[in-house]
Amino acid sequence: MSLLVVGSVAFDTIETPFGKAERVLGGSATFFMFAASYFTPQRLVGVVGHDFPPEVLRELEERGVDLRGLKVDADGKTFHWTGRYEGDMNAAQTLGVSLNVLGSWKATVPEEFRDSEFVFLANDHPQTQLDVLASVRGNPLSVADTRDFWIAEEPALLAELLHRVDGLVLNEHEARLLTGEHNLVRAGAGILKRGPEFVVVKKGEHGALLFCGEGTFAVPACPLEEVRDPTGAGDAFAGGLMGYLASTGKRSLEAIRRGITYGTVTASVAVEDFSVEPFRRTSRQALNDRHDAFLKAIRF
Amino acid sequence: MSLLVVGSVAFDTIETPFGKAERVLGGSATFFMFAASYFTPQRLVGVVGHDFPPEVLRELEERGVDLRGLKVDADGKTFHWTGRYEGDMNAAQTLGVSLNVLGSWKATVPEEFRDSEFVFLANDHPQTQLDVLASVRGNPLSVADTRDFWIAEEPALLAELLHRVDGLVLNEHEARLLTGEHNLVRAGAGILKRGPEFVVVKKGEHGALLFCGEGTFAVPACPLEEVRDPTGAGDAFAGGLMGYLASTGKRSLEAIRRGITYGTVTASVAVEDFSVEPFRRTSRQALNDRHDAFLKAIRF
Repeated sequence: MSLLVVGSVAFDTIETPFGKAERVLGGSATFFMFAASYFTPQRLVGVVGHDFPPEVLRELEERGVDLRGLKVDADGKTFHWTGRYEGDMNAAQTLGVSLNVLGSWKATVPEEFRDSEFVFLANDHPQTQLDVLASVRGNPLSVADTRDFWIAEEPALLAELLHRVDGLVLNEHEARLLTGEHNLVRAGAGILKRGPEFVVVKKGEHGALLFCGEGTFAVPACPLEEVRDPTGAGDAFAGGLMGYLASTGKRSLEAIRRGITYGTVTASVAVEDFSVEPFRRTSRQALNDRHDAFLKAIRF
Repeated sequence: MSLLVVGSVAFDTIETPFGKAERVLGGSATFFMFAASYFTPQRLVGVVGHDFPPEVLRELEERGVDLRGLKVDADGKTFHWTGRYEGDMNAAQTLGVSLNVLGSWKATVPEEFRDSEFVFLANDHPQTQLDVLASVRGNPLSVADTRDFWIAEEPALLAELLHRVDGLVLNEHEARLLTGEHNLVRAGAGILKRGPEFVVVKKGEHGALLFCGEGTFAVPACPLEEVRDPTGAGDAFAGGLMGYLASTGKRSLEAIRRGITYGTVTASVAVEDFSVEPFRRTSRQALNDRHDAFLKAIRF
């Protein structure tokens, strides 16, 4: 079924204890798309500048991404994020943000994407997320991400968004900030009461918690020997989850739980190296093998 | 089958963000025994002072603990630990240690316990752990705990212990310290190479990792709404694991994995309130129900 993603396509400059990458491919939608492309075709709404490599656009098309919602802005440069990870690499320190073309862009869903049945709203201003959602017809399965900045600055709009989306994915820090609850089980239950049918609290190397009407579920992360760059892990998680759901057309708890194991595995691919390189070298077969191994590792 | 535990029986004075408990029942063997008593009779080797309440000894006997290896030292007081948890409660800050009778005591396994088929060596000087192990006949399934102090101060004896035990349980901090590896998958694999057949790295609220010849396995902790005092969680985990194994007589990977889910559940009981109170109010039936709920929560 049709999967729409609205988010950033960017350049990242990243430093971790394991190396440095300059102006490599990044962005929330990018990591989402590389992860979801193992499962299903996609539709992208986003913006890049005149400096964006045409060969990456071709690569996305080859991975099944419909780019009719991507604006290539000839008047500006692509969004560029610079960050650093230290110590246990659980949180990025932002060193610089050049919004560039993202600063003046307004997300617009083209007519031909408005029948999308699965929608992922990557982290963005909640008003933008609401506008996108309003422009999609029917009753899509919609999942949003958010971040600390919007929780602090736009609580009313975020509250409205929570009533409109089916699912919310966010990290443990954000879940605590949103609810004022340190305990994650209380925090997740608290978010659930604000509207969404399900909430996924991502805990990085410690896995994720799923909250829904049927209860609370806990899944570990893939045990990994090497984590070189955690950038994009959360979006790759969402990509695996949504890509799997869209490929099946299902929105049952059972499907969401299976989607979460795929999301865990696509996130584990993302962190192995800088940018989207690990996706380029991981075939669908290798991903399936990794998923099988993961299911074995968590079968207790 | 017979299960021997060698460890401390103590008084704890504890402060957490949720309250304070003065001179309550604690100790590594105590938490282990309360957890294991859901599954199997036990044999204790330990020491208490003249101030230890006889009614607790009766309670332990009622829970199936054979106390013929417990010395009641009329010349001294029971070991007393004072500690505090702050913030995320992942690590205790020791405020005071009064070894008392523990200071002059030497663990001795009575003749009638030397045929034990399952042995748990709670955190102690590795020479003591080695001596205890040497005094048990046959080929018991032996599992040891240790701590940062012994890793730093007695590396040679600890290395010998690792060659003698079947299993090691330790927390993530200790696993990193023991191997010099920050990545826990590498740390666990590194410990495995030093002798034990299996290693369990405990991550507190984030669950545990199991390393063995067959691979690496990851289990989340029980999602809990309330954690009032984490003291004893690790020993309660070991108690659930070893109690289950001894009750079945099995030592297969399958049994160890099932034991780890029981250990996760007994640890979740331990942290709900101060001292052993949560065990006193949790029936075997309630524990089974909680175990069933946990298996549902981690079935992905």
